[in-house]
Amino acid sequence: MTDTANTAGDTIASAMRHALSLAAHGPAWGVNPQVGCVILDSDGNRIAEGWHRGTGTAHAEVDALGSLQPGQARGATAVVTLEPCNHTGRTGPCSEALIAAGVTRVVYAVGDPGAESGGGAARLREAGIAVTGGVLAPEAEEAMHPWLTTVRNGRPYVTVKWASSLDGRASAADGTSQWITGAAARQRVHEQRAASDAIAVGTGTVLSDDPALTARGDGGELMPHQPVPVVIGTRRIPADARVLQHPQPAIVTHSRDLNAVLSGLFARGIRSLYVEGGPTLASAFIAAGLVDEYAIFQGAVLLGGGRPAVTGIGVGTIGEARRLRVHDVEVLGEDVLIVARERDED
Amino acid sequence: MTDTANTAGDTIASAMRHALSLAAHGPAWGVNPQVGCVILDSDGNRIAEGWHRGTGTAHAEVDALGSLQPGQARGATAVVTLEPCNHTGRTGPCSEALIAAGVTRVVYAVGDPGAESGGGAARLREAGIAVTGGVLAPEAEEAMHPWLTTVRNGRPYVTVKWASSLDGRASAADGTSQWITGAAARQRVHEQRAASDAIAVGTGTVLSDDPALTARGDGGELMPHQPVPVVIGTRRIPADARVLQHPQPAIVTHSRDLNAVLSGLFARGIRSLYVEGGPTLASAFIAAGLVDEYAIFQGAVLLGGGRPAVTGIGVGTIGEARRLRVHDVEVLGEDVLIVARERDED
Ligand SMILES: NC(=O)c1ccc[n+]([C@@H]2O[C@H](COP(=O)([O-])OP(=O)(O)OC[C@H]3O[C@@H](n4cnc5c(N)ncnc54)[C@H](OP(=O)(O)O)[C@@H]3O)[C@@H](O)[C@H]2O)c1
Ligand SMILES: NC(=O)c1ccc[n+]([C@@H]2O[C@H](COP(=O)([O-])OP(=O)(O)OC[C@H]3O[C@@H](n4cnc5c(N)ncnc54)[C@H](OP(=O)(O)O)[C@@H]3O)[C@@H](O)[C@H]2O)c1
Repeated sequence: MTDTANTAGDTIASAMRHALSLAAHGPAWGVNPQVGCVILDSDGNRIAEGWHRGTGTAHAEVDALGSLQPGQARGATAVVTLEPCNHTGRTGPCSEALIAAGVTRVVYAVGDPGAESGGGAARLREAGIAVTGGVLAPEAEEAMHPWLTTVRNGRPYVTVKWASSLDGRASAADGTSQWITGAAARQRVHEQRAASDAIAVGTGTVLSDDPALTARGDGGELMPHQPVPVVIGTRRIPADARVLQHPQPAIVTHSRDLNAVLSGLFARGIRSLYVEGGPTLASAFIAAGLVDEYAIFQGAVLLGGGRPAVTGIGVGTIGEARRLRVHDVEVLGEDVLIVARERDED
Repeated sequence: MTDTANTAGDTIASAMRHALSLAAHGPAWGVNPQVGCVILDSDGNRIAEGWHRGTGTAHAEVDALGSLQPGQARGATAVVTLEPCNHTGRTGPCSEALIAAGVTRVVYAVGDPGAESGGGAARLREAGIAVTGGVLAPEAEEAMHPWLTTVRNGRPYVTVKWASSLDGRASAADGTSQWITGAAARQRVHEQRAASDAIAVGTGTVLSDDPALTARGDGGELMPHQPVPVVIGTRRIPADARVLQHPQPAIVTHSRDLNAVLSGLFARGIRSLYVEGGPTLASAFIAAGLVDEYAIFQGAVLLGGGRPAVTGIGVGTIGEARRLRVHDVEVLGEDVLIVARERDED
């Protein structure tokens, strides 16, 4: 699974690194992963590059091949972050496009785990193409982690976000909470909303805060991509709730069944769900074992009382604690953002 | 306060940087600050260096001068991290030693705020020596922050430490708490103990946990410097409490009056106090406004119930929140250490 047999190893690795950076140009939301592709001629020169721009558009390999003259890819190497698909979806299978273009070698980072889309490497080998997988796999797996998790679990990638004081309180004793965190953290929340397919709150938050649940820039303007707002819980929400004026039609679930809610969202093509609380809904997701990632914003304040950010997740004694893995820690203005993931997922 | 007029500015700044690194060789505990000194000859060559090794030993300037031949310092520049003292303590005043040695220029980083020890710069100028203060002052102030705070406040520098889950719980619902944090975090606690003059716990922690309160290495061995254990609270503790077998005689206060306790410790030469809890004592220090620094160890676990790490600090509404400044954030094994300071101290 390594590239050591290849004399142009550095070129391949640097092409893969470039392909990874191209992948990141694609949207983080939607049913498809971010994928990048670089085409090298037989001397190792980059002659084309491409990336996937979202559902319904060309896959990265086809995007890259499209910029070449007919015949120009003959004898070339395709370096792509994900195993080329073998699946006729809205676009033809990439494996066939590479074969037709006369590419003689394909290098990819991560195998395609999809039941329908997988098998591209085998198809390419069958056609006599040299195929190497696993190049820069850890980097690529990290970049595609939410998508890979989604494929494995068959439900949206669930990120639970909360804001608390350094001592874990979501609000002060009298219920006030604005602002525990500062402008930089709040802006990051908007960016995370904009990178999600959908955003969920419990009925409690709608009834008490009436949030707009839009992704906005620091001037307050709507960002180009808006997550679908989802309201979870059985209570009715007012007809004039701001979430019902969201640019995306809101999904009002009238349900507390989180598994059913997630299945319904998945069936609609929602692959990432950003759960913004409140504490009851966040704790219900944690207790049900349905969280993939935690975005914990801690403001540099102490409250010493008030409502805890997490309650009742079914832990009675320390041995039952839900053990996470700290994935990233960042200082944002005066605040700290801790990104953690479920430990068994890695 | 800058060094721009000096043609050998780079040399002075790099000598000061070296002096700061020398200062760090000295002990972090005790009544005196960590100070370093470099002596440059008239060509800017380092001819001597020194640092302060703790109470009763030579100050950094005298330590450096001591390595020179008689007359060798004539015409030299002394670069020192703290304004030379003007005070005859256990050692003579450094200002006089520099004058006697024939040094013609003194550059320092931070002025000496001490009522007794200050005034060295004026004394040196009086003797015709060129004196420049403020070189690399921010770095030096940061390094001497606890000592400078102590001089300003006239009480020990108080660090409150706690360990909690990511949701702010010090123990699970049934009271269990071992281990919320892992080996790397626990070892860091021992290092922080070893860098402190004294370590405090409430009677509650002694009665429930019977901690040894020693600073130990990762093999369990005692570290060379041991903090004085201090038990705060009115209840009697058992005669066989492990804290009473500590290598340093324990101070058992029989008091809840934190100001009186701190004054008593200061009078005994204790300049840094590491408050290890439990939650009642930590919260009492916070409520009294007597905390200079927070060492918050967060284990990568969620508990969702159990005892909060901080309770009852007199905050009723968000506007009254105790606002801190995040000074440093570090990932330690699976855990996160957030170091915060009182915001108004900076
Ligand atoms: N600090 C933060 O990051 C943050 C974020 C958001 C909100 N908040 C604050 O949180 C407060 C609202 O708290 P909250 O806890 O009432 O709001 P919530 O979590 O938004 O809503 C609670 C409701 O969620 C519904 N729900 C859906 N699935 C559930 C399940 N599986 N188990 C239990 N309940 C489920 C229930 O609604 P039904 O009863 O209708 O079935 C429940 O009453 C507001 O004051 C808001 O400001 C804080
Ligand atoms: N997570 C952590 O980092 C951590 C650290 C240490 C301990 N712990 C846990 O904390 C638990 C013990 O908790 P705790 O809160 O009872 O212990 P504690 O804070 O160590 O002791 C409480 C006692 O402190 C005394 N005290 C001194 N000054 C006070 C003041 N100004 N105001 C109020 N009380 C003052 C009182 O003693 P009198 O009644 O005698 O006057 C009070 O009962 C143990 O289970 C231990 O494991 C956790």
